[in-house]
Amino acid sequence: MKTIYADHAATTYPRAQEVIDAMVAYMKDIGCSPGRGGYRLSLDASRLVYETRVLLAEFFHVPQPEQVIFTPSVTYALNLVLKGLLAEGDRVLISSMEHNAVVRPLTRLADERGIRVVRLPCRPDGSLEPAEVKRALCDNTKLVVLTHASNVTGTLLPVYEVGEILRGRDVFYCIDAAQTAGTEKLDFAALNCDFLAFTGHKGLLGPPGIGGLCLSERAAEATKPLVEGGTGSKSEAEYQPPFLPDKFESGTQNVPGVAGLAAGVRLLQATGLEQVKEKKKALTAAFLAGLERIPGVAVYGTKNADTSAGVVSLNLEGLDNGTLSYILEESYGIMTRSGLHCAPLAHKTIGTFPDGTLRFSFGLTNTGDDIAAILAALQEVAKKS
Amino acid sequence: MKTIYADHAATTYPRAQEVIDAMVAYMKDIGCSPGRGGYRLSLDASRLVYETRVLLAEFFHVPQPEQVIFTPSVTYALNLVLKGLLAEGDRVLISSMEHNAVVRPLTRLADERGIRVVRLPCRPDGSLEPAEVKRALCDNTKLVVLTHASNVTGTLLPVYEVGEILRGRDVFYCIDAAQTAGTEKLDFAALNCDFLAFTGHKGLLGPPGIGGLCLSERAAEATKPLVEGGTGSKSEAEYQPPFLPDKFESGTQNVPGVAGLAAGVRLLQATGLEQVKEKKKALTAAFLAGLERIPGVAVYGTKNADTSAGVVSLNLEGLDNGTLSYILEESYGIMTRSGLHCAPLAHKTIGTFPDGTLRFSFGLTNTGDDIAAILAALQEVAKKS
Repeated sequence: MKTIYADHAATTYPRAQEVIDAMVAYMKDIGCSPGRGGYRLSLDASRLVYETRVLLAEFFHVPQPEQVIFTPSVTYALNLVLKGLLAEGDRVLISSMEHNAVVRPLTRLADERGIRVVRLPCRPDGSLEPAEVKRALCDNTKLVVLTHASNVTGTLLPVYEVGEILRGRDVFYCIDAAQTAGTEKLDFAALNCDFLAFTGHKGLLGPPGIGGLCLSERAAEATKPLVEGGTGSKSEAEYQPPFLPDKFESGTQNVPGVAGLAAGVRLLQATGLEQVKEKKKALTAAFLAGLERIPGVAVYGTKNADTSAGVVSLNLEGLDNGTLSYILEESYGIMTRSGLHCAPLAHKTIGTFPDGTLRFSFGLTNTGDDIAAILAALQEVAKKS
Repeated sequence: MKTIYADHAATTYPRAQEVIDAMVAYMKDIGCSPGRGGYRLSLDASRLVYETRVLLAEFFHVPQPEQVIFTPSVTYALNLVLKGLLAEGDRVLISSMEHNAVVRPLTRLADERGIRVVRLPCRPDGSLEPAEVKRALCDNTKLVVLTHASNVTGTLLPVYEVGEILRGRDVFYCIDAAQTAGTEKLDFAALNCDFLAFTGHKGLLGPPGIGGLCLSERAAEATKPLVEGGTGSKSEAEYQPPFLPDKFESGTQNVPGVAGLAAGVRLLQATGLEQVKEKKKALTAAFLAGLERIPGVAVYGTKNADTSAGVVSLNLEGLDNGTLSYILEESYGIMTRSGLHCAPLAHKTIGTFPDGTLRFSFGLTNTGDDIAAILAALQEVAKKS
């Protein structure tokens, strides 16, 4: 049975040969650790990491390459921001579409540091009125955290508009680009944000285990590291070096991951980000249009490919979404993700808590035929149920 | 020019083909994320991670596989222990041979949480009298942290004896096995420890970017996560699940890293840990014996291969160790690491701060010929200088 992968919001699949080749090339031709020796192979590793930093700084329009740090995941990057920045009594605004990577650390910080978390109410389609941010701002607001796109509905949040609202204010601004890095335009400078957290293994086409964080200068200064340790720099000091990127990068790095990520970003650049976005939009639009003709399907989100990041959540009347996911794989080879997608808050917002939804998410490797086959399968299941 | 890699304490090199193959196999044949979907490829990824957990639990003699958690590095694992366990006013005992991965987070905790850090004095050869631990214990001692072997001198610390001293006491015990996992016998149960932190890319022959932590049940309960977020479990909860391994594993995992680590451990098992240890010991013994015949060489550590983990630090009279390292690579193709090795405390203990030493560290891929060539090179340089 031919299989169709429609879970790109979880991770990109299949993996590009160029990404695998880059990982193998590091392992075979370099193999050593960056910043841990003066010999050529160690310097080669340092250069690979530095060049990837430069590549990402250009890609995200970050002023200096050092303002891009590598992390094991976007979850780590978000924890670093929240735990490194927020102190006793601070107020933080988040959207009501955030992922547990934001919600769970904040639950702990509310408990331990008395952080006050204000959840800005999104509409039932997941969208956010920028004025909600303006309304909620007050003197002790330290940070605003917004997901760029919901991992449940794909709904894009107005991250540029909110950046304008926050311009010139003494409030830090963090964007979770887990779902949009590699799909939507992310211009760090134009976003007027302090933190841009991303992962390498979704839209950027890299391997799992590597992500990163872009930081403004004031953010880098105000934020404490999540992990201290050996940096290969200021080895004489028993405290963490205060400069970028070392302040936030301790221990031996995931260099094969960095190599794979660089290859992924170069692939994206070769295709063109605009083309990638247009392709995902076309797939999503075709899927949304087809869904309208299937009886008993409830679609969540804006139902508009222009305001979505290639993610569609739905339920089929009379069938549990876990069962539907199972049938789609067993009988049609279609891979999806059912349930709550680690985002209970988002499901509460769109009214699908606690049963969740069935999520389809599309990537560069999907085709129009995939969409037609998924629609035909859903049509058939809907008829039977 | 033939090259000789003598920096195994930094990372293993060259990378085993089996490890590369395992990473490629994951990327090509599985590619998806574990615990993030119900389809076969996601389950295959979950199985790969679980089987590696079982493998490591057997390898380290940990009762349950869930007591092994994956981390991006040993530095992360040590930070998790220190920051997750220590609270206001706690006292922690460390050896005076610890790496900055222990020292730097503790510097911060001393500052922020008023943790009192007691440095148990090691002898100038880096060894520790177990009675030092007994002597320093008092009522508010919460944790003892010992490196199993110094990354500067290779000196083995008496981790089993200290485990006996701590048996039955209300004190947590953490062993940093960065330099010994895959070389020395590590029996979690016999060590009577609460935390065993390891990295995958040194003795275990895996790729960089993956490490882990073995935890006792009481340690798992008493320790807070370093990172909270999506776990693919209890998705309805806005707090971190309290059970293992999910409590400490948030976000998408480095599955290619896990796959490579599993292949590394299997390679080790195929060779036999005892054989690996004997081989490193023989190389170290030959090197130490040869060094005695070179004039002007000062060797640090116990100068005894039986009490060292394949690491030898030295200085050559009249030559800066950075320059010596450079000459050895440029003229003889020998890769070493000079300076302070991210361990200023250890260098203070052995009397080589702030100039440091030149470190040679050996691995499975080194041969007797390598040792002879290194000795000949040192002999030649010593004559000229």
